[in-house]
Amino acid sequence: MSELNEFFNELNEECGIFGVFNSPISSELTYYGLHALQHRGQEACGIVTCNKGEMFLKKGEGLITEVFTKNEQFHEGENAIGHVRYSTAGGNNINNVQPFLFRHSTGDFSLAHNGNIINSKELKLELEREGSIFQSTSDSEILAHIMKKDQDLNRVEAIKRGLKKLQGGFAFLIMTHDRIYACRDKNGLRPLSLGIIGESTYILASETCAFNSVGAKFVRDLLPGEILTITKNGLRSTFYTEKCNNNMCAMEYIYFSRPDSDIDLVNVHYFRKQSGKYLAKYFPCDADIVIGVPDSSLSAAIGYAEESGIPYEVGMVKNKYIGRTFIQPSQELRDKSVRMKLSIVKQIVEGKRVVLIDDSIVRGTTSRKIVSLLRNAGATEVHLRIASPEIKFPCYYGVDISTLDELISARKTKDGVRKEINADSLEFLPIDALKEILNRTELCTACFSGHYPTDLFSYGKKKE
Amino acid sequence: MSELNEFFNELNEECGIFGVFNSPISSELTYYGLHALQHRGQEACGIVTCNKGEMFLKKGEGLITEVFTKNEQFHEGENAIGHVRYSTAGGNNINNVQPFLFRHSTGDFSLAHNGNIINSKELKLELEREGSIFQSTSDSEILAHIMKKDQDLNRVEAIKRGLKKLQGGFAFLIMTHDRIYACRDKNGLRPLSLGIIGESTYILASETCAFNSVGAKFVRDLLPGEILTITKNGLRSTFYTEKCNNNMCAMEYIYFSRPDSDIDLVNVHYFRKQSGKYLAKYFPCDADIVIGVPDSSLSAAIGYAEESGIPYEVGMVKNKYIGRTFIQPSQELRDKSVRMKLSIVKQIVEGKRVVLIDDSIVRGTTSRKIVSLLRNAGATEVHLRIASPEIKFPCYYGVDISTLDELISARKTKDGVRKEINADSLEFLPIDALKEILNRTELCTACFSGHYPTDLFSYGKKKE
Amino acid sequence: MSELNEFFNELNEECGIFGVFNSPISSELTYYGLHALQHRGQEACGIVTCNKGEMFLKKGEGLITEVFTKNEQFHEGENAIGHVRYSTAGGNNINNVQPFLFRHSTGDFSLAHNGNIINSKELKLELEREGSIFQSTSDSEILAHIMKKDQDLNRVEAIKRGLKKLQGGFAFLIMTHDRIYACRDKNGLRPLSLGIIGESTYILASETCAFNSVGAKFVRDLLPGEILTITKNGLRSTFYTEKCNNNMCAMEYIYFSRPDSDIDLVNVHYFRKQSGKYLAKYFPCDADIVIGVPDSSLSAAIGYAEESGIPYEVGMVKNKYIGRTFIQPSQELRDKSVRMKLSIVKQIVEGKRVVLIDDSIVRGTTSRKIVSLLRNAGATEVHLRIASPEIKFPCYYGVDISTLDELISARKTKDGVRKEINADSLEFLPIDALKEILNRTELCTACFSGHYPTDLFSYGKKKE
Amino acid sequence: MSELNEFFNELNEECGIFGVFNSPISSELTYYGLHALQHRGQEACGIVTCNKGEMFLKKGEGLITEVFTKNEQFHEGENAIGHVRYSTAGGNNINNVQPFLFRHSTGDFSLAHNGNIINSKELKLELEREGSIFQSTSDSEILAHIMKKDQDLNRVEAIKRGLKKLQGGFAFLIMTHDRIYACRDKNGLRPLSLGIIGESTYILASETCAFNSVGAKFVRDLLPGEILTITKNGLRSTFYTEKCNNNMCAMEYIYFSRPDSDIDLVNVHYFRKQSGKYLAKYFPCDADIVIGVPDSSLSAAIGYAEESGIPYEVGMVKNKYIGRTFIQPSQELRDKSVRMKLSIVKQIVEGKRVVLIDDSIVRGTTSRKIVSLLRNAGATEVHLRIASPEIKFPCYYGVDISTLDELISARKTKDGVRKEINADSLEFLPIDALKEILNRTELCTACFSGHYPTDLFSYGKKKE
Repeated sequence: MSELNEFFNELNEECGIFGVFNSPISSELTYYGLHALQHRGQEACGIVTCNKGEMFLKKGEGLITEVFTKNEQFHEGENAIGHVRYSTAGGNNINNVQPFLFRHSTGDFSLAHNGNIINSKELKLELEREGSIFQSTSDSEILAHIMKKDQDLNRVEAIKRGLKKLQGGFAFLIMTHDRIYACRDKNGLRPLSLGIIGESTYILASETCAFNSVGAKFVRDLLPGEILTITKNGLRSTFYTEKCNNNMCAMEYIYFSRPDSDIDLVNVHYFRKQSGKYLAKYFPCDADIVIGVPDSSLSAAIGYAEESGIPYEVGMVKNKYIGRTFIQPSQELRDKSVRMKLSIVKQIVEGKRVVLIDDSIVRGTTSRKIVSLLRNAGATEVHLRIASPEIKFPCYYGVDISTLDELISARKTKDGVRKEINADSLEFLPIDALKEILNRTELCTACFSGHYPTDLFSYGKKKE
Repeated sequence: MSELNEFFNELNEECGIFGVFNSPISSELTYYGLHALQHRGQEACGIVTCNKGEMFLKKGEGLITEVFTKNEQFHEGENAIGHVRYSTAGGNNINNVQPFLFRHSTGDFSLAHNGNIINSKELKLELEREGSIFQSTSDSEILAHIMKKDQDLNRVEAIKRGLKKLQGGFAFLIMTHDRIYACRDKNGLRPLSLGIIGESTYILASETCAFNSVGAKFVRDLLPGEILTITKNGLRSTFYTEKCNNNMCAMEYIYFSRPDSDIDLVNVHYFRKQSGKYLAKYFPCDADIVIGVPDSSLSAAIGYAEESGIPYEVGMVKNKYIGRTFIQPSQELRDKSVRMKLSIVKQIVEGKRVVLIDDSIVRGTTSRKIVSLLRNAGATEVHLRIASPEIKFPCYYGVDISTLDELISARKTKDGVRKEINADSLEFLPIDALKEILNRTELCTACFSGHYPTDLFSYGKKKE
Repeated sequence: MSELNEFFNELNEECGIFGVFNSPISSELTYYGLHALQHRGQEACGIVTCNKGEMFLKKGEGLITEVFTKNEQFHEGENAIGHVRYSTAGGNNINNVQPFLFRHSTGDFSLAHNGNIINSKELKLELEREGSIFQSTSDSEILAHIMKKDQDLNRVEAIKRGLKKLQGGFAFLIMTHDRIYACRDKNGLRPLSLGIIGESTYILASETCAFNSVGAKFVRDLLPGEILTITKNGLRSTFYTEKCNNNMCAMEYIYFSRPDSDIDLVNVHYFRKQSGKYLAKYFPCDADIVIGVPDSSLSAAIGYAEESGIPYEVGMVKNKYIGRTFIQPSQELRDKSVRMKLSIVKQIVEGKRVVLIDDSIVRGTTSRKIVSLLRNAGATEVHLRIASPEIKFPCYYGVDISTLDELISARKTKDGVRKEINADSLEFLPIDALKEILNRTELCTACFSGHYPTDLFSYGKKKE
Repeated sequence: MSELNEFFNELNEECGIFGVFNSPISSELTYYGLHALQHRGQEACGIVTCNKGEMFLKKGEGLITEVFTKNEQFHEGENAIGHVRYSTAGGNNINNVQPFLFRHSTGDFSLAHNGNIINSKELKLELEREGSIFQSTSDSEILAHIMKKDQDLNRVEAIKRGLKKLQGGFAFLIMTHDRIYACRDKNGLRPLSLGIIGESTYILASETCAFNSVGAKFVRDLLPGEILTITKNGLRSTFYTEKCNNNMCAMEYIYFSRPDSDIDLVNVHYFRKQSGKYLAKYFPCDADIVIGVPDSSLSAAIGYAEESGIPYEVGMVKNKYIGRTFIQPSQELRDKSVRMKLSIVKQIVEGKRVVLIDDSIVRGTTSRKIVSLLRNAGATEVHLRIASPEIKFPCYYGVDISTLDELISARKTKDGVRKEINADSLEFLPIDALKEILNRTELCTACFSGHYPTDLFSYGKKKE
């Protein structure tokens, strides 16, 4: 697959979150932080800034550079949280854009969420029965409602109570008048890391690459099940449950994260390169050149080339100026549309046997198009090597993997997929290879294996 | 005063609302309807469209022509409600922009509100105690929360229950999957009228002028305390209380409404002209010309001229191209800023004794500037006649009248005001004249008299 | 007619010009000046600023408040000229937007033009034969080309040479590195006035109302045929010909100018009111109310009412929020479109015999619609009084009067027009009345009389 | 260097041009073509469309996706030419944005230009002496003026006469009512290629990568000195001089062009990879990893790695969402600004001896920053290999290379540069290597060698 899919709506995560505690330029830092996380969501974004307890919200549809266009739009304030969002699901609806800001007599608070709550439907029904009403179709509002149902609890207890009810993969930032709470789900499915600028400005980010963009140093990843409270007095850590394990989503390594991010101390580019090497070692082939689908498959392609000794080439170029405002081609040009985003370098490819590295296959449509483009450009053979296992199961933890019917590997054997894609050979990275490369046993590979790290009482009812 | 005040933030109402039931172009009609109500709020606006039960929201800051810029932004749907808003109080905050859209398992619903809830603070606290959380600082969200607290009630009963708890002046449009509810407060403080296009497309609007803009015929004003339910089966009317009376806000006649609107069957221009005649009859003066402050004082000025026989002149011109995007003058030009909005016609004014008609005086700053501009242009005398009584008390029903301290007539005698404004003479329309001209006994004149038509248990606590 | 026509494209002038010499905030002043002249052109605008000899251009389509949206867009510089334009004729083309900026080895210069050059086609051909090429379809570029054809002439001589060749009505501002030249055509058809701020900041404007907006005092009107040179050393005046006369365009009084402007020391509102009185005196009628078509016919209506004793009423309201971004109604609503711009006050009009005052009739379509709206609202009689003579001839001096065929009064007798418009009676202001009211003998009334103050060697060939 | 420089204003070409002859969707094709050429200019762009002889211009500042935002902005027409521009030199000035459109009695025509005219100053002076005036500070207007000076010549003769006078590097597209002329300078400095869609739609583009984006097939490169005339009757070729040679700008290979473009039948990625191999072969070093500065140095880095056997790594990531609207960091963050655009992958770099491949060094500032970032990230050694020779001389043919003083290699020895950049070793690609790899003897290497392929009578006077 590749970031191209971004365009083809094949595989999408929903968010990136970022927070700043204790900086005179908290909004500005959040802007740059979200900018570094922009690859996690291009549809909408927002920042809530807290200035001596008072909260200001600015959000909108578009890239962070489209929603914020001048310095004056940065509200003053010492703390801030922000969010980038892939889709404005449920109607093109500003209500779904985060962070959410809640006005409350005991103090306003704000919330940003990355991930997915499996039992959101049940929880919403239960809350509605008690009189709650929701303004978004997002499941991210739920935690705030649960927290407020029992007014006697102190804040951390309320958050614990809330998180205990949530099933799924998630990371939350909750900002109140004088602090930020950062939380991760007990299975560690979605990432969240802590950084620091100087001695007392704390940074929270979905990916470590965002620390670079604001000059922060990485401190540590949050732990599964952790609730980290950041106040003027420093950090305090607690857990909402004792049953935690570290099932980080494998797709974060394979596809979502930027290569310069580290997840659980393993660098993403490093992982991808190793996965390419693995493919070369176990699934070699006789070919003249190695090509990666830009941008997310390049590291794996480099690894394949290095291990196999087959030259690595830039055989495809992706147009980097395609964005939301791109005018879609008219009917006459429709079938040529791939060429506007992806251009094959004919001189490189012509007459060559090509090893094509892609990061994943979802529906298979993109892969088929790319193989076809390569053959049209004169490739004599196309051997497809996928730097992930076969995706056969839907994801319930925040990755927008299409329904079972649309997953080509759920419908077809490997050879069936190969035929549909029209590749000369096709191989996938085995599930075990993932764990071997990462040198860890805990890892969420549910979309490959069907083994979900959480209970799925709503399985089958989701996404209807 | 005058619409200029709009610019000087002296006197602002908060909203206009508009609804369409049963038209294939409900969104488009709402656009034109809101356009006709734009004078009631220029800061933000929105439309919620209901298409076979599914709701779509589009809202934003700016004029209706700025938020909606192309046809494709009109969602398809048979019913729609819309809102124009004066201010985005509580931080420049999209959360406060209406209509509100609530997602609920029993069916989404949407709400648009004009007016003010006096006991909002108490109600919010109570609701919060039961676990509700609010996303806006607006009091308009409250009704939705109350309605949903008791799930066993049918919808109309839930609305009744909600409205009974609200104190203040208000008009609501509530749209559910197959109907629109239109409600007015039991004191009839805020206006709401029903119109019709053809035989079965119903229109609801804060002012009758909006009917013209969509080709609708006026049917009737909603009654105080009425809940009108509009469904495919037609209209059904009920009341949430029996203790109703018709205390329409006098300021609707004096200042807010467009001259081509009728309120309780009395035309606004007609009323204003009569008020000018009354002033001429009871507070004559020796002068050469009559001038009105544009635009809302022109009708009264015409009346004064007609009754007195003193020629009516266009002695001031208002620049009609001033809007949100106007670049504020630099320090060097700051003190000249009135001239950019308001230009005195020197040739008309020079050497003349002027009767200046304004619709009201709030803080007195604008009046002082205008008198000064007239004198600089050569007026030898300036006699100010105000087409409303002295504003001495704050309003709690949706008119954003500044705090007591800022009301010049609350601080000073009539002669004190005259001196501060530097007029040669100053007279106000008596309270009784209002009722005489309108030929009604019930009318809210609280901002003049201090007699509020509702209980004010939170008096003094408001707006702190 | 009325400003409504603006919307109906019936009658349009092409420009307003504004210049500032010697102010540290020349760009900003030009912004406010153009803002006051915005009624003379809403389609496009621009400012050229001269900073120590270096010139900066910013221009675009839209209102001045749309093209300039932040302070930083004001270039620093001591001198500036600006332009507002009605149409971007010749294709929606940025090349036609003024001021024009020319880059030249002897010093850059810039030019803004209001008016029309009759012999532009011949002059362009001649210039092209000598190698000139034009980048706009506007005739305003011509003067610059002529000026540069003979490099030996000093600048004033070059301008003289150029102006001598031009036939038509025009006003020019020409800015070079250290001065501004202001010029008017020898027949005085188009207006241009000089103002001053403090002791040494000179202001030039198409209309005196723009002086108010920048705090300038009126000094004097430029004379027909005058070339005024403004330098650091002060003013110097010369004439490009001795055969001058003062045939100011009557339409400036009747329609174009803002009521607070003075033209040749006569105030525009005053003139219009007098024209209304004249109509009342010579063309009285039995009626109940007098109504003016907003905004440009209101002064005349006031005059008619005052003279006749018939009450003046606000019987129509114009929606002031209609602008470029207004979404045009769909087919279904098309025929109702007038209502969105113009709303009849039914309560005022119903059952009344109406005197309707309009400023002019061009094609008659608008008038017919308005009469029809009045009748629909219940007016029993509609007596139309037009505050100008019958328009029977095209204008070649900068007023975009449609072709002969489209001028209803060129095709029909007064009674024929009355019938088509469906008025009960119809009267026009006589040509002589214009001169009588203005107390002048020289005045361009060519569109009424067919007597053109200039030679028209290209007559009949224009506008093909 | 790298595309980063784009951001640091170190090295910029001025344009890309694109033309379509004979397609019902010529404007739309031009949009996609310019989109593929966007890397050649991001500041401004425009399209002129010819519809049955009538020309329409739309141009503006920003990316093609910012200037054209909806389908309706594509004018209908069978032929079109377009332009993307790096800078709006001479003041942020819409007048300098191309294509230029000239209105002429013998037929409008339009012109788009890539390159630089050395003797523009002399030519402009000469033209001005004959009465020409210029509206841009661009040298691209000159050809149009020369062409029109002698009206008796037929069009091709006029173009020939014009081109003969021009010295420098250039490619022109000239569109008249029924044809397009495409021209290249006699030294072949700037590229221009011909493509075809179907049988009769001709495409012209600065780079062959644009053919892919519209589904066109490459036909051939235009020849130095060629004037290609495209009409309904097909192609006709002529030359404006017999003294032609093929001195293609080496920087097109090294830096400007997209890797998927072919120049004179040599693929750009291929060339770059070979240059990396050459560096590895002749300037080896003991290191652990090879890193390329993204994006333009990646191909060379791949080549270096392949030849040397040192692993190629993604050691830096460039943020792809930086654009015009990016808010510049406040003073507090200013010195950290590189990090927002370029992020070092610490886990990859730490403890490693790095070979860093960059495409060129201009001022050296960027290189110094990158070396410093690498060392901060823990690189123990940084060996810099530059895939081009030392830039010691300014360019006069369209590449915006800073003045001599700013070129670090013009001021310092190789070792001096190394010290300033703080690299452990530094090597450049020799000039001869360029020709060897490209297997050609003719190539403009003037910025490296000082040997200019054209006369430079204005040498030293340029760019003062």
